[in-house]
Amino acid sequence: MHRPATSPLDRKLLAVLRSRLGPVPIALVLGDTEDLPDTDAPVIGTVRIPDRSTLIALAMSPEMGFGDAYSDGRIEVEGDLVRALECVYESPKIKNWYTRLRSKYLDWVQANSKRGSARNIHRHYDLSNDFYRLWLDDQMVYTCAYFPTPDVSLEEAQEAKLDLVCRKLGLRPGETVLEVGCGWGALAIYMAKHYGARVKAFNISHEQVKWAREWAQKSGVSSNVEFVEDDYRNVVGRSDVFVSVGMLEHVGADHYPELGRVIHRTIGDTGRGFLHFIGRNRPQPLNVWIKKNIFPGGYPPTLAESLGFLQPHDFSILDVENLRMHYAKTLEHWLARFELAFDKVVRERGLEFARMWRLYLAGSVATFRVGKMQLFQVLFAGSRCQSIPWTREHLYAPFREEEDTELWTRAM
Amino acid sequence: MHRPATSPLDRKLLAVLRSRLGPVPIALVLGDTEDLPDTDAPVIGTVRIPDRSTLIALAMSPEMGFGDAYSDGRIEVEGDLVRALECVYESPKIKNWYTRLRSKYLDWVQANSKRGSARNIHRHYDLSNDFYRLWLDDQMVYTCAYFPTPDVSLEEAQEAKLDLVCRKLGLRPGETVLEVGCGWGALAIYMAKHYGARVKAFNISHEQVKWAREWAQKSGVSSNVEFVEDDYRNVVGRSDVFVSVGMLEHVGADHYPELGRVIHRTIGDTGRGFLHFIGRNRPQPLNVWIKKNIFPGGYPPTLAESLGFLQPHDFSILDVENLRMHYAKTLEHWLARFELAFDKVVRERGLEFARMWRLYLAGSVATFRVGKMQLFQVLFAGSRCQSIPWTREHLYAPFREEEDTELWTRAM
Repeated sequence: MHRPATSPLDRKLLAVLRSRLGPVPIALVLGDTEDLPDTDAPVIGTVRIPDRSTLIALAMSPEMGFGDAYSDGRIEVEGDLVRALECVYESPKIKNWYTRLRSKYLDWVQANSKRGSARNIHRHYDLSNDFYRLWLDDQMVYTCAYFPTPDVSLEEAQEAKLDLVCRKLGLRPGETVLEVGCGWGALAIYMAKHYGARVKAFNISHEQVKWAREWAQKSGVSSNVEFVEDDYRNVVGRSDVFVSVGMLEHVGADHYPELGRVIHRTIGDTGRGFLHFIGRNRPQPLNVWIKKNIFPGGYPPTLAESLGFLQPHDFSILDVENLRMHYAKTLEHWLARFELAFDKVVRERGLEFARMWRLYLAGSVATFRVGKMQLFQVLFAGSRCQSIPWTREHLYAPFREEEDTELWTRAM
Repeated sequence: MHRPATSPLDRKLLAVLRSRLGPVPIALVLGDTEDLPDTDAPVIGTVRIPDRSTLIALAMSPEMGFGDAYSDGRIEVEGDLVRALECVYESPKIKNWYTRLRSKYLDWVQANSKRGSARNIHRHYDLSNDFYRLWLDDQMVYTCAYFPTPDVSLEEAQEAKLDLVCRKLGLRPGETVLEVGCGWGALAIYMAKHYGARVKAFNISHEQVKWAREWAQKSGVSSNVEFVEDDYRNVVGRSDVFVSVGMLEHVGADHYPELGRVIHRTIGDTGRGFLHFIGRNRPQPLNVWIKKNIFPGGYPPTLAESLGFLQPHDFSILDVENLRMHYAKTLEHWLARFELAFDKVVRERGLEFARMWRLYLAGSVATFRVGKMQLFQVLFAGSRCQSIPWTREHLYAPFREEEDTELWTRAM
């Protein structure tokens, strides 16, 4: 293979890119130049850069440059894509002004006003139910699963997650639940079917709500589950329980105080609440390429940021669990199913779309594995709620056995 | 019984006191006036106020006035003391300027500089080991116990707590542990004895350290446990694990950033850490009477405040558990044992001291029962620590059975 000679400028640009990537064990190849990492670790992958314009884009913003060039096929990664991304994420990096500026700009155009949220959510979740059916489990649960042991199937793990949420909340027959951001409705339907709850579930994705209503009908629980196509900010009325699984990432930090007020006016000082969300160890914007192409308006908060909007309402935090390794595992399943359906995705939506989504899923596996993102489940209760679990042992009793109500403290 | 006539001024003061207490179902009696609460709830107790000066002190600051008058015997509560205090704590109150000022003044004179901490800790924990032996369990654990079921003995519950801490940390033989604020040494000794850990434990209470050293000797673990009579701020060196049970309440919010730095320089980005502390739902000073008489320099933080000093160091929060009902139960045991030893305490330390401590213990039972205080256990890990538990199921395996190491994820 003929390899064109690289100019001094190209070599300088390669050096800039290398300094931005940090000491990752990945070779960068441009023309006849192979730039090797300054590390003892064995090289685990090679990235071939086709031309100077791609190199400039990479050097200016590795996040944006790599994402775009990988998606449109200019760049290939030789070696394991997930492992290569893990190395990049593990390496300490300093964000440059260009990436920062781009990120701030996106925050501005993708702001989560009611209209902005509608647009942001539409872009991701209304892509097509058929597309998501290609690689999600049969209940269409698009959030972190719970694997009692690492080897259970995705289907079992998603059902175990739905049950875990109900157990953490100590859900009882006849209780009313408000869910915001209900996806395709799996949790709402599960709560009605297996716990006898009466659920009102909000979502602004038209495609998801349509699907959820049909499914509730088929499941015979439509009298106990109401799906409302509306914004969480328009919620009115009281419930015993508030629950949100995988929505907080879309709320945006500016709107947390409003979410706090919605929760408090829903469950007051006596109800229970549950938040499940992708989070961070410290405040950090979402990867700019992901924000532009996958999750417009997205922001994963730290645990402290989430407590920041619960604290003013005097809520008691009862339990926090970090399930990041379960999200890595969930994403491995999704990625494997996605790869099986890759050709179909290419036929239906084009190669660029397919490669974009492969990168998003592979990058997400990597980021949860190395611990750059966390998955928090937060159980809380109103300041006067005396119906709190004595221990957490009931969470680990055999799956879906009848709850031992004595394990719960009631108003004394 | 002759009851002197109350003046219009007294009646006015009674009304002020009533407004400060809120709608509690407790009768206030002064002379021939019985002030009944404006509530439908049955009256559950009566407080007899002997004279106008006591009434003025109560009206100015119910917290201080009641604590002082109860301690020196001017005031008796007819009815169940704990239940009466629960009603007072449950009632929404507005702190007045006098109480606020008094609280700020105490914060100033009781500031937790190294010298201040030494003084504050000495006042509480160096009272006398014999005194604490009268009402603590046989391992002298002076923090919230863990009751697998509410009916186990205090001794069993304290041992279960020590084991729970070790399990949460996933402690392995040969690992090094730094403990700060180690009390009489029960946890440090337990970790060495049952988990093969090598523990260095800091404490600035001379009496406690003396006791702990003797006990480690008797337990045959003194080669693996070192007790250091020094401030947590003077900690140097690395450990695999950082642990602190019941010290954060004494650190003071001004010193949290320093504690965060101590933790990070101890375990770096790869170790694990554990904090167990009395906390709040929202920021609130400690009861001013308790601060003056029982815990000088004390401040129970919110969960968010505790995360505030972990977040800058990129720690991953893995698990948070709220055990407030277990602290109510622990305190019930302590109070019951204290009542059995009451006459001995009076003989040795005087009636005022004994009544002061009765009020502190009874008030603490009440405050945890009604949820005005929380007990948080926070497990966290360095940002590069990959040795994290897969689930929490191992915490609920039969007591002290061998750990199934497969339940732990190791560097992948």
